[in-house]
Order: sequence, then C-alpha cells, then structure tokens
Amino acid sequence: MADQDLIPFSDKYKRIATEEAWAPEELLKMYADLYNSKTYDDPGFDSLWGFYGSSMEPRPATVRRKLADLDDERIADMDAAGIDFAILSLTSPGVQVFDRDTAVTLARDSNDMLKEAIDRHPDRYAGLCAIAPQAPELAALELERCKNLGFRGIINNSHTFGEYLSDPKFWPIFEAAEAMDMPIYLHPTTPPKNMIEPMLEVGLDGAIFGFGAETGMHMLRIITAGVFDRFPKLQMIIGHMGEALPYWMYRLDFMHNAQVSSHRYETLKPLQKKVSDYLKEHVTITSSGMAWEPAIKFAQQQIGLDRVMYAMDYPYQYVKQEVTDMDNMDMSDEHKKMFYQDVATKVFKL
Amino acid sequence: MADQDLIPFSDKYKRIATEEAWAPEELLKMYADLYNSKTYDDPGFDSLWGFYGSSMEPRPATVRRKLADLDDERIADMDAAGIDFAILSLTSPGVQVFDRDTAVTLARDSNDMLKEAIDRHPDRYAGLCAIAPQAPELAALELERCKNLGFRGIINNSHTFGEYLSDPKFWPIFEAAEAMDMPIYLHPTTPPKNMIEPMLEVGLDGAIFGFGAETGMHMLRIITAGVFDRFPKLQMIIGHMGEALPYWMYRLDFMHNAQVSSHRYETLKPLQKKVSDYLKEHVTITSSGMAWEPAIKFAQQQIGLDRVMYAMDYPYQYVKQEVTDMDNMDMSDEHKKMFYQDVATKVFKL
Repeated sequence: MADQDLIPFSDKYKRIATEEAWAPEELLKMYADLYNSKTYDDPGFDSLWGFYGSSMEPRPATVRRKLADLDDERIADMDAAGIDFAILSLTSPGVQVFDRDTAVTLARDSNDMLKEAIDRHPDRYAGLCAIAPQAPELAALELERCKNLGFRGIINNSHTFGEYLSDPKFWPIFEAAEAMDMPIYLHPTTPPKNMIEPMLEVGLDGAIFGFGAETGMHMLRIITAGVFDRFPKLQMIIGHMGEALPYWMYRLDFMHNAQVSSHRYETLKPLQKKVSDYLKEHVTITSSGMAWEPAIKFAQQQIGLDRVMYAMDYPYQYVKQEVTDMDNMDMSDEHKKMFYQDVATKVFKL
Repeated sequence: MADQDLIPFSDKYKRIATEEAWAPEELLKMYADLYNSKTYDDPGFDSLWGFYGSSMEPRPATVRRKLADLDDERIADMDAAGIDFAILSLTSPGVQVFDRDTAVTLARDSNDMLKEAIDRHPDRYAGLCAIAPQAPELAALELERCKNLGFRGIINNSHTFGEYLSDPKFWPIFEAAEAMDMPIYLHPTTPPKNMIEPMLEVGLDGAIFGFGAETGMHMLRIITAGVFDRFPKLQMIIGHMGEALPYWMYRLDFMHNAQVSSHRYETLKPLQKKVSDYLKEHVTITSSGMAWEPAIKFAQQQIGLDRVMYAMDYPYQYVKQEVTDMDNMDMSDEHKKMFYQDVATKVFKL
C-alpha cells in the first residue's frame, strides 16, 4: 500500500466504527470442526463457515486472520484507515450454534479475552458483551458481569437455532439489558433452515441478501411482539442502514394496522405506537456495509440524525475508500460529527 | 362518503394506476375450494386465501367484492379517487397454484374476460396478460395471443410451486416477452413453504413483510442468473417502491462482486454489468402500497425519474387520501406528470 493510500485522522471528529468483528482462533477452529462434523443441521451455517472457515481464497483467508487479531494488525489497519476507535463484537454466529453449556462457557471466555484486549488498547477499543441466548437467565447474569467489566452493550447474532428474541422465553435478556442500560446490537446471521432454501440455492443467503431479509424480519418480530411496550427503556442497534426497515416504514405502518384491525392473525396484536415510532425511539442504525450517502441521508431524515452512526464492518468490508467517501459526503461538519462520533458516544456512553 | 371526499381529476396529468388487481368470481371460488380441500401444501396460500377467501371481516369481504367487479363499482371508485386509467392484472397468486392444464385454461379464460371488460371501458382500462408458468412454451403462445388482443404487458405473481423465473426452464417466457416487447410485472405472492415459516408464525408473511422479501429476492435471482445479459431488451416492473432493492443497491453491488470474485458459489456467476445497472436499465418501479414521498424520491433519484410510476394497489389499498398525498408531493409538475402519466404511457405503450 502506498503512503498516499493512508487516511489521516480527522481533526473535526473522531471516527468511531461500531460494528467491528473479532473471533478467537479457538472459536474459528470450533466453527470448522462443527462444519466438518456434519452433526449440525443448519445449511446457513454450513454456507457461511464452510466458506469462511477453510477457503484459501484471498478474501476468506484474510478475514480469518484479521478476525483473530486484536493487536498489531487490527491497530495498524485502523491507523491506515483513520479509524480512532472501534466497538468490537464477537463475529456471527457467535456462540449461538453450540449446545447450551458450551455456549455459556464460550461467551464468558470470549468476553474475558476481549476485556484483556481492551485493557491493552483502552484508547482504541470498547466491547460488546457476547451472550448465549440458549440460557436466557445465565445470559442476563453474564450481562451484569460484562457491565461491571466495562462493556458498552450486547451483541446478538440474530436467530438461535431458528428461534427469535421475540419469543418471551428470551425476555430475561431484554429485562437485564434495560436494567443495565445496555443497548443490544442485533447483528445478522444466515437465515434458519426453514427460511434459507430459495436464497441458498442461488448463492443469495449471505450478506448480499439473506442477512438483511432475516435480520430485518427479526427486528420487526421484536417490535410486533410488543417488546418495546414491555421494556420502554430498551434500546437496540441494527446495521446495514437499518436492514431496509427505514425504507419500508410507510408500508409497515399501513399493513400492521390493516392486519391488526381485521384480526387476521392471533399472533399480531395491537401495539401502543406505530411500527415506525419504535424504529425512531428505540433503534439506532449503523452504516455497516452501506457506505452510501443516499441511504445514510434517507435514514438520517426518516429515523433521525441522532440515530444513525458509522460502522466499517471490519474485517469483512475493510475498504479505506469508503472512509474517504464518508468524509466527502455533502453534509455539514456538525452532522458528520454526529454520524462519526456523537451518536456512538451517546449510545455506548463512551 | 361526503362529496368533499371526492378527488377531482387533474388538469395537469392523467393519473394512471399501474398495479390494480382483479379476479373473476370463479377464480375466487377456486381459491376457496383449494384452501378447503387441504390438498395443496402451501402455507402461504393458506394464510392469504384462508383469510381473503372467506373472512367476513370488512377488509377481506370488501376486497373480494371489489376484485370481482370490472364495471360499476370499480369505475365509481376510480372516479371518486380521480384515477383516469388503470392497468389491470389478475390478483395474486393468479393461476400459479393450480395444475398445469387447469392453469393454462384459467389464464386464457381470464384474459378473455379482461379483454371484454377493456372493450366495455376502453378509455379507462388496459390489461396485463395472465400466464401459467407451469407450461412455459404455452405461456409464450398465450403472450402472443394477448399481444394481438391489445394487452400491454404480462403479470407474474412471483414463485410457482417454489420455483423461480431465474430457472432456465422458464426462459421461453422471457424470450417471448422480449420478442413481443411486453414488460413483465413481477408481483408478490406469499413466500414458498421453504422460506415462510419464521414470518408466518408471527403474522409477517403477507404484505407487511413476506411479500417484499420474497419478491425482492425473486428479482435479484433473475438479475444474478444473467437473464438480462441473455435477453438485453427485456423490461420488467416491480411494485412497492422496488421491494427495497433501490435501498440495497450499494450492498448488492459490493457483495455480488465480493462473492463472485472469491468463487464462493458455483451458482453465482459474473455478470456483464453491476447489479444496480440492471435495476437502472431493465426495471421500472411502481409506488403500489408505498404512497410515501421520501421513498418515491429516493427511487427517482437512484433508479431514474423515467423508471418510477404510480400505482394504487386497488382494491387492497383503496385509500383516496394517498392520491391527495401524491398530488401534494414537493415535486415539479413536470416530474409529477412523469410519475403519474408519462412513465406508464411509455412502459405500456398506451
């Protein structure tokens, strides 16, 4: 890389990247072992980690190496891209593909490892707490432990064995998150086996389409289940410019009202507010994978300037040109500072 | 309805509504019979027509009555909403849930019925040709017959028994559409049984979410299969402001390139152009169900002013206030005329 490719730090704002993935080498090996064992019936996991876990193509090999590094390479990459600070989270699918006891232990161990890295680089990193939704009550306890360790929020990689946080059995996690005042980042994973097939058969199950369809649905399930009516102080985060939900807001409101008022589904109950109100009052959106001014401005205008923040999606989308593109957006310095720094500072209490 | 609720016709533009549904009473009865027979294994069909086919709630009962009317009530509703002209199409799922022979006959009969209605109201209606993808070669012949009857395009209600037009076995339909210079409207239906479950179990399988996820995926399947490389003059139409694909364009381009160049999928092949280029050059978008200025302007800016047109989605979304909202958009009269009239006139050769 030539020196002129380096992006200097900005004197107008700190660039805080908010959806930055890591994974211990042990976990990457466990993913590879799980894939090779053929004992886990999840075609989405097989698609994602059958590729990222072992392919020697440059993209997956680089992703594996960078995921496992929490020191020299990552800091050098941040320096080269002018990223001041990163909110780190355990990569998808986290511990959510293992049995309950394994998952609980892995979540705890990975949080301890991340805490050590943060202590080595306190001016560059903060962390999100990994949890095992397989054990909701223990997850709530791990949240409390993470809060005391200085973690700034929670990472949940969408569904767990095809189950969604909209199911009340998971609500101890929401209860703890609200009580600890920690936001939950709802990160994508591949769609579950009862959803993925028409995408998988043509290679659309991953980040190109399946991630967004599944995670957008998950967020909508959480809203329509009444989670924010039950936990009115709960805050959540979704990436990829809101997984298209900001674009759908009008239709979500119209059709939710139409279907509730015509009693089409027993499962679809009246809510205290419009679907779009929950997005505007309970969800912060990041630009991970969507370093695209038109979508960023759309979300800022529709959801709120104080609810849209920057993410790089390192190491999956480590593209320095995107930082330049974000710097060059036709946007006031004040609003750019909100996007890069102020919203993240507030959401994560940095 | 009070007189002041009537919306006068505009002297600045004709309002052409482009995704307007109808269904013969016989077809509605066949949907009800198919549902009651319990012989058709499609939970999405059961969800949609188990509700719209028999519910006595005001919304579905009104939808049924208005779907079957091609004369007095429909014309009166168009007059009341100031709609000059409607492009009519057989409602979802069309004939795509019946056996091959039944579907071929039904498509032909429904086209004949629609032709008669157009002849009764030639200054108010044009029609899209219903086809049975179950028999692609016969569908191509029906297209030719429809062309000679004056039809302006083709309606396809997304998947057929879980199969997608991206499968080359359906490409005789694309070949005929290109040869006849007739656009194909890719209308939603409920997701197939290998995709619908996580949506269905919480009432999100229909227009509120499942329609858009499935139809957006279908359009993306058509693009990534290389259909527009093979049929470079083919034109298609999608509703609901593009089923969110305009909002996703940046990520679609980035991830398609990333996945093709890393050889992740054998099924995902290089294309001649970027994914977004096909949207801009081969797809026209309608505002059905999305009478919302921010999304309309976003699509106009990203896909093109000459590729965004009005639709009401009658009778599913017969809301006169939405016409007023569209009239009052902060948009030049020239661009409003494009939206309401000029784009449709060009796409459908009216």
